[in-house]
Amino acid sequence: MSNPKDKTAVVLLSGGLDSATTLAIARAAGFACHALSFDYGQRHRFELESARQVAAALGAAEHRVVKIDLSAAGGFGHSALTDRIDVPKDRRDQGEIPVTYVPARNTIFLSIALGYAEVVGAFDVFIGVNAIDYSGYPDCRPAFIDAFTRLANLATAAAIEGRGQYTIHAPLIELTKAQIIERGLALGVPYGLTHSCYDPDPQGRSCGHCDSCKLRLAGFAAAGAKDPVQYQG
Amino acid sequence: MSNPKDKTAVVLLSGGLDSATTLAIARAAGFACHALSFDYGQRHRFELESARQVAAALGAAEHRVVKIDLSAAGGFGHSALTDRIDVPKDRRDQGEIPVTYVPARNTIFLSIALGYAEVVGAFDVFIGVNAIDYSGYPDCRPAFIDAFTRLANLATAAAIEGRGQYTIHAPLIELTKAQIIERGLALGVPYGLTHSCYDPDPQGRSCGHCDSCKLRLAGFAAAGAKDPVQYQG
Repeated sequence: MSNPKDKTAVVLLSGGLDSATTLAIARAAGFACHALSFDYGQRHRFELESARQVAAALGAAEHRVVKIDLSAAGGFGHSALTDRIDVPKDRRDQGEIPVTYVPARNTIFLSIALGYAEVVGAFDVFIGVNAIDYSGYPDCRPAFIDAFTRLANLATAAAIEGRGQYTIHAPLIELTKAQIIERGLALGVPYGLTHSCYDPDPQGRSCGHCDSCKLRLAGFAAAGAKDPVQYQG
Repeated sequence: MSNPKDKTAVVLLSGGLDSATTLAIARAAGFACHALSFDYGQRHRFELESARQVAAALGAAEHRVVKIDLSAAGGFGHSALTDRIDVPKDRRDQGEIPVTYVPARNTIFLSIALGYAEVVGAFDVFIGVNAIDYSGYPDCRPAFIDAFTRLANLATAAAIEGRGQYTIHAPLIELTKAQIIERGLALGVPYGLTHSCYDPDPQGRSCGHCDSCKLRLAGFAAAGAKDPVQYQG
């Protein structure tokens, strides 16, 4: 980030709390941000609408939504996020890979972000993965980010021709949820626009009991702040 | 490939000569093959129809076509394969990255193949990249394949949980086009069903003058065989 004023970044934006904070961090570092979301048959559309609003609120240079229909290739696997599998509620065990794991998701998202970065001339890609709260997901760990960075600098004409070297930024990777929220509140992230719940009601209100809601609520509590999103009941 | 009879592979299949030969190699090695093609807004549809016919002729266990609309993210860049840029004809210089380069294409394709492999329980992925004839493409080199293999074994639950280690097979990577064709003819690849031309006429006949046609024709000539596909004029 030697001269961030001249720099352009691609930021993966899901509409959730983590990616919104990541976009705010990239903006605060002076990057012109091309926000990128994916429409991959999520069970609900609230995330993508949140992404649109968050991108506008945080001053992204643009926001694009790429549609990928992976139903032909197993629909990203049998994940509670895309299939009719029940979203687990009030789950205790955090030690194994959760049912909400989606095969190769971050690899696919980063690959498309890399192609997009090459098109817009960006060498910085931001992703809001977190190895603490999502320790069960293999593609949220520092070793994965390092391996993808290495791949990016071998895979692209821009890198091979010496126009630049790619950096994959994962600024939240070692933070707790409370630390992420504290950082985001300091940067003015409009958390009321974000959406984290895996199982919202038809009005988009969060369930408060899925893994994602529980992490979020515990994070706000630990940060001593009130979560501005609406919860059911 | 210790016990290939029990093994399942995902094979990237474009409908061209190289990927058809790759599928035949995987079949000959005893793999049950899940062929995977991409509909990414190619200028013409002949490739995907060829892929369908080749998969059937070579006894693939199944053939899936994944639709990815990257127009929102720059349409895979400004490539002569997806845009209205003229396909170069009778080009001499092979030393630079060609206009037909598509940003991060093989990274994106392999990522989706990896997700698909995890879903079907495969640990072997075949891709028909070639570092000799396509030396201008960064994502056709052995270093790229090695980096992706390393990534795959960090990115997936299947690898992390010890169910297996991914191997990315690129059996053509060090072969000349003539060697690929000789190998394919020995394995009975129905080359008449394949499609290589970047700029076919409306009937699907090949132009004979784009980079892809010229490599293919020179390969058949060097292999002492006749190319069974139809050429214009």
